[in-house]
Amino acid sequence: MRRMSGVLVLIFYILSLLLPLPTTTASSCCSIKGLSLVRNISELPQDNYGRGGLSHITLAGSAMHGLKEVEVWLQTFSPGSRTPIHRHSCEEIFVVLKGSGTLYLASSSHEKYPGKPQEYFVFANSTFHIPVNDVHQVWNTNEHEDLQMLVIISRPPVKVYANAFLPFLKT
Amino acid sequence: MRRMSGVLVLIFYILSLLLPLPTTTASSCCSIKGLSLVRNISELPQDNYGRGGLSHITLAGSAMHGLKEVEVWLQTFSPGSRTPIHRHSCEEIFVVLKGSGTLYLASSSHEKYPGKPQEYFVFANSTFHIPVNDVHQVWNTNEHEDLQMLVIISRPPVKVYANAFLPFLKT
Repeated sequence: MRRMSGVLVLIFYILSLLLPLPTTTASSCCSIKGLSLVRNISELPQDNYGRGGLSHITLAGSAMHGLKEVEVWLQTFSPGSRTPIHRHSCEEIFVVLKGSGTLYLASSSHEKYPGKPQEYFVFANSTFHIPVNDVHQVWNTNEHEDLQMLVIISRPPVKVYANAFLPFLKT
Repeated sequence: MRRMSGVLVLIFYILSLLLPLPTTTASSCCSIKGLSLVRNISELPQDNYGRGGLSHITLAGSAMHGLKEVEVWLQTFSPGSRTPIHRHSCEEIFVVLKGSGTLYLASSSHEKYPGKPQEYFVFANSTFHIPVNDVHQVWNTNEHEDLQMLVIISRPPVKVYANAFLPFLKT
């Protein structure tokens, strides 16, 4: 088992010498001189965190860039895809770059029905923010177009709590 | 003088009843029901803070939206215009939406010449961040096109300290 690990480390080391890793390319491509600082977004690594229809790119963040107070993502949702219903104890701001969709937001300060989700139409060139700890979901309800947004959160890394819009359960 | 102030207040009060102020329009236009939350960026108020060639729009911030941890601006610089040479004790992230330009950054951790500005080419679909307290300036050095960027800062409202790239003074 130990020899196996050693072999894997060796293979990874050789590969790292041979392959230009995406992050290296991205962070070094744009420096005129000195530090690598400017990153081409098209060359940054994408992930979907197991959610179909999602493309997530961290533009600047805690793990990759050592930021402690703020993190910025570029998220693209294909038609019909959506975030989970969730909440978090940080501030969050969205800037919609392309497409349109629906924000479901269950404000804890709703006068008559605390916890009942309200619907908001969100669209290209719009912006909105989520009050701390309010349960919410963003859904690409436009079946013809991707929904692309910049997402800004404070206090990274984000700790997400899965939720339902109880007692107003949505699937 | 006192009567004059009273008249001015009265005029302002009557105008506020007659005119749809931009902020009111912007914050109420997009709600499907319930809270006003989604804002059309085209309808948000602009300012230039006395800097020629600058258009500054606060998309979400401390004064207007009560955010405490993060603030997002849309800034557009006409060809040749630029930020002052400055620093601040918060994190700052830029996302370039249109155009191109030059970032001057005097890293305090530069090995050989601390305080000497380095030049970085910044361009549409690129992103970069400024280390806390590093002196910097962003300049639209593209004479054919506006430079438009989303600017994200932590710990609003930002406290800016004017600086020079000393002893490497630039005008």
